[in-house]
Amino acid sequence: MFFKKIAMINEIAQHRSVRSYKNDAIPTNILDEILHAAARASTIGNMQVYSMIVTTKPEIKEKLWEAHFKQEMVKQAPVVITFCADINRFEQWCKLRNATPGYDNFLWFVFGATDALLASQNLSLEAQRHGLGICYLGTTNYMARKICEVLHLPKGVIPVTTVVVGYPDSTPELTPRLPLEAIVHYETYQEFTPSTIDTIYKEREECDETQGLLKQNEKETLAQIFTDKRYTKKDNIAFSKEYFEMLKEQGFFNQ
Amino acid sequence: MFFKKIAMINEIAQHRSVRSYKNDAIPTNILDEILHAAARASTIGNMQVYSMIVTTKPEIKEKLWEAHFKQEMVKQAPVVITFCADINRFEQWCKLRNATPGYDNFLWFVFGATDALLASQNLSLEAQRHGLGICYLGTTNYMARKICEVLHLPKGVIPVTTVVVGYPDSTPELTPRLPLEAIVHYETYQEFTPSTIDTIYKEREECDETQGLLKQNEKETLAQIFTDKRYTKKDNIAFSKEYFEMLKEQGFFNQ
Repeated sequence: MFFKKIAMINEIAQHRSVRSYKNDAIPTNILDEILHAAARASTIGNMQVYSMIVTTKPEIKEKLWEAHFKQEMVKQAPVVITFCADINRFEQWCKLRNATPGYDNFLWFVFGATDALLASQNLSLEAQRHGLGICYLGTTNYMARKICEVLHLPKGVIPVTTVVVGYPDSTPELTPRLPLEAIVHYETYQEFTPSTIDTIYKEREECDETQGLLKQNEKETLAQIFTDKRYTKKDNIAFSKEYFEMLKEQGFFNQ
Repeated sequence: MFFKKIAMINEIAQHRSVRSYKNDAIPTNILDEILHAAARASTIGNMQVYSMIVTTKPEIKEKLWEAHFKQEMVKQAPVVITFCADINRFEQWCKLRNATPGYDNFLWFVFGATDALLASQNLSLEAQRHGLGICYLGTTNYMARKICEVLHLPKGVIPVTTVVVGYPDSTPELTPRLPLEAIVHYETYQEFTPSTIDTIYKEREECDETQGLLKQNEKETLAQIFTDKRYTKKDNIAFSKEYFEMLKEQGFFNQ
């Protein structure tokens, strides 16, 4: 659960998910700049097989808010950016240039998603440089169908993640992370033993926040809060099937 | 094809893919710091369902080099980091805590890949702050089976991308990007017309580099170089099937 005092790019060190925003709009030149920062990220073959849908109009944000399980921050934040894997533009270009594209398959969903996600992280960090806060929305993958409808996404385009952006109304604490040995393996993958799992999760399990959550949720372990409350197998499988179905419908599984 | 002079986080503005490295090792404290920077990225539910395999030993790097189509930089760069979606550690923790996990499905491949990719971009930017260069390897998704073997990845773990890291032997020019209107849509998705496609790709198609590539490849359009040479439909479908097969074998499609 480290906050080691390490010199680091300030926006990386200070990143937190902001879930409460002021009403203030983002000036156009700043919005433009964070979008430019996104575009500087690495992209497969420099093909830029992704797109960013920048939504600011309240009536469209309201529909996105409904899609994102009515999380207030989607209404509050002045800008909602939906990052999509996008082979549509590239394939259209190919067809207009006497070239036969073959990108409507799973591999290019992964490449498009990679492009979109690297861009999203650049955008998030650059936004923070301007005093803006951001939050990623995992509900994007749950509700891809509804988001496709609201944003009129054509075949060849599927939402991968969403970032809300705005001026923070309050600045939450940094959230803890597991010790580095939980996520880093040297040379090859080193399997965990029950004892290493205990060590890795010890601080997280013993902290005050966890003790509070256990009481509140009437559970005996923190893991049960994840499996029984936050991310249940039943929900996971339902959303999983639905997202995969959308992948096919949006034309990323012709193989 | 913009290099607009915009103030921006320096590491974002100056990012390029470095494909040629010096022999120098990366000091442990710097490696440690860039891994810490990776860990500060947003992660689904703060569950950190990803892992980073840090390979430095020449005999293992040699095997990765073979997997990555023998790209020299994999041998040259002192550190090769394979970013994986990883539900293995989280599920093991759940099982040891009397909780029944349900993360072995497609949704959690997407969440794990998202975690891994956001972390990879933090790591890449922080590496640049130390004068290091990086390059993403798309071959990771082509050769996932071989990489799983070399790195002993258990069920619940699949490689998503790879970043080579080292001191640049030479610093390439920044690569151009399409104008922002190619990748940004305001409010909802705005479909392209042949005329907007022409406008978006004009500068790229007319530049000297493209003219050189057309001669060298004996093709009439730049798009044909992508579809007929670099990323052919036949290869795309073969690699696509293979990666999806690996996804199932590694336990991300029980739904």
